[in-house]
Amino acid sequence: MRFANRIGTLEDKELLSLMQLSERPDIISFSGGFPSPETYPIAEIKDSFMKVLDESGKEALSYSSARGHAPLRSAIADRMNRNYNLSIDKEDLIITSGSQQALDMSGMLFIDKGDVILFETPSYLGALNALKAYEAELVSVDTDNDGIIIDKLKEAIDKYGDRIKLIYVIPDYQNPTSRSWSSKRRKEFMEFIGDYDIAILEDAAYAELSFESKLNEPLITYDKKGQIVYCGTFSKTFCPGLRVAWIYAKKEIMDKFLVLKTSVDLSGSAIAQMQMVYYMNHYDYDGHIKKINALYKSRRDLMMKLVSEEFPKEATYEKPTGGLFLWVSLPEGKDSRELLKLALEENVAFVPGASFYPENAKINEMRINFSNMSEEKIIKGITILGKIMKEFISK
Amino acid sequence: MRFANRIGTLEDKELLSLMQLSERPDIISFSGGFPSPETYPIAEIKDSFMKVLDESGKEALSYSSARGHAPLRSAIADRMNRNYNLSIDKEDLIITSGSQQALDMSGMLFIDKGDVILFETPSYLGALNALKAYEAELVSVDTDNDGIIIDKLKEAIDKYGDRIKLIYVIPDYQNPTSRSWSSKRRKEFMEFIGDYDIAILEDAAYAELSFESKLNEPLITYDKKGQIVYCGTFSKTFCPGLRVAWIYAKKEIMDKFLVLKTSVDLSGSAIAQMQMVYYMNHYDYDGHIKKINALYKSRRDLMMKLVSEEFPKEATYEKPTGGLFLWVSLPEGKDSRELLKLALEENVAFVPGASFYPENAKINEMRINFSNMSEEKIIKGITILGKIMKEFISK
Repeated sequence: MRFANRIGTLEDKELLSLMQLSERPDIISFSGGFPSPETYPIAEIKDSFMKVLDESGKEALSYSSARGHAPLRSAIADRMNRNYNLSIDKEDLIITSGSQQALDMSGMLFIDKGDVILFETPSYLGALNALKAYEAELVSVDTDNDGIIIDKLKEAIDKYGDRIKLIYVIPDYQNPTSRSWSSKRRKEFMEFIGDYDIAILEDAAYAELSFESKLNEPLITYDKKGQIVYCGTFSKTFCPGLRVAWIYAKKEIMDKFLVLKTSVDLSGSAIAQMQMVYYMNHYDYDGHIKKINALYKSRRDLMMKLVSEEFPKEATYEKPTGGLFLWVSLPEGKDSRELLKLALEENVAFVPGASFYPENAKINEMRINFSNMSEEKIIKGITILGKIMKEFISK
Repeated sequence: MRFANRIGTLEDKELLSLMQLSERPDIISFSGGFPSPETYPIAEIKDSFMKVLDESGKEALSYSSARGHAPLRSAIADRMNRNYNLSIDKEDLIITSGSQQALDMSGMLFIDKGDVILFETPSYLGALNALKAYEAELVSVDTDNDGIIIDKLKEAIDKYGDRIKLIYVIPDYQNPTSRSWSSKRRKEFMEFIGDYDIAILEDAAYAELSFESKLNEPLITYDKKGQIVYCGTFSKTFCPGLRVAWIYAKKEIMDKFLVLKTSVDLSGSAIAQMQMVYYMNHYDYDGHIKKINALYKSRRDLMMKLVSEEFPKEATYEKPTGGLFLWVSLPEGKDSRELLKLALEENVAFVPGASFYPENAKINEMRINFSNMSEEKIIKGITILGKIMKEFISK
């Protein structure tokens, strides 16, 4: 059977099999990147499904429009306008089947074979996969604690010039490091990039998972030219099983996304969208987010305490101020994939850091999720992991 | 803003705006391609959602596996095995977000820029759109009442040779003509194509919408080499708002689809999949299909009667033995897009036939849905359409 050329580049069997091992039920898994299921407001979601089926069953079970259920788009636009002092209209949004679909569609929209995509690195594995499928060259741009490094970005632009079609960034509590860009860096980035005809994919999946007193300003706040495709989602703040997310960009871009949405799956699930807006209009979504952030903050605190006690001194990390992950560096040359194999033997899992680099991967880092396991499992898992790490590093 | 080359080929603004007009609530629309919403078993679906949330709420609201909810895959495999005397295993299936996603992923899997895809014509508009996005050359192969014409297929293969990577077919009650391939033609096709390294996309969306005494044998029944990607869906026999469909192919192909599924949207909606299998295991899905087929058959009968009375003699058509559509040919040179503009002025809509051709479009055909409108609206709409057609043809 003859396949398309793109297929050859997409498989990472080693990681896939490690990840499948992590899904064993007996595993203490710090590898997930999702909210903790005990936070799902199941009773309210059930009530919302009921009401939607009672009040609008036929509509809920029919095709949605390709753009998405209008009342949900209104509710999302209102919320973004309130959170970030914007004036987005519901017609500027399209509902996607998770943010992953927005990433895939962005590849489809912008990328021809051989184009270059810049990534702040490390970066989200799923974005690398989605965009690699469009046969782009994926190029790393280094970050520091304030965000993407403008000088490094300039170097990449000098090197690749017009071949660069897209920059993928996660300015808020990013996956995998949980770092947020500083306000100053956001402005510098947008001022700098405004001089180039390059689209920006702003992935805001973690924006509201904040342990700080106020939300960061999204890059769209500074977007004078309309360069940004903004991706928001309910997967991290509510639940991922509904597959409801959205994209926002200026009209010229959205008109094309609408054509692509029809092409990739006609429309999202009507009932899932209607459930979501019913919930938002009848329950306390903001309160829900506050509640989960309090829980994740307490789990972060527990993990920080344990890690400082159990991990070897050679392992370094920053304290996350939001998001879902702790990012740990081992000494140079220590391969975290090897560490994972040892950890899996003791029924503990995490994600090796190399997977988060589009190129020039560092092998000595690892991503540890703190949102998903119970306190008891965090204590047990981090204690085990610390012990294995000490042996691993001393070898 | 610089977009990918593929974008230029994807827009059909005229059709899009005509279709948007068809969605006006005052319109008698024969343009849809979906089940009639009054057939949705809303109470049973509601009960299924409830039970799933009560019994497995956390799982239902979390990410599904990329392959899809295992019990649903089992239920689908069992049903296909029973219907068609096959021995498919649940591991041979992947759940997709509607068949449209399976079409998109098939483009992604098989097509490089400049490859050729053959279509039995006329063919499903959504497949043309999905596959066009991969910058293939779309080539028409003529059909007769028995299916794709083998001599025409041979001509295309002689002409395009190895450039042909994929053939898209809908052997059962196809969209837009409702024709089914004869059993003889199915065998001839599979014997002929077995000599070539070309993948076959078998879209079985309408297979069970049959007014005949037994189901057709799918092409996979005759697939000795494992060339076929089979696409099944609940959108036509149950409801489209859940976005639950599936693909089946041999392992070599499915392993690659699994990677692509992760890339395009990580996974389908867990709750929608769990609802679907709950319904299948606790209610009478086969009985439901019998019921809707009886309804659609009676609507087809009504439409055939009216069309024979109201349409001008110059309009020709075959009586559908399943599916959702009546396919009507006007005299040569009469453009059905012009007829649609006149019909919309009288609040009646259908889909002009030219949209269903990948190339060499015939302009004098039209697709009329018979499943979706009430008896009253069928009577009113066909009467109006007949009157307009008579004037249009005599001009």
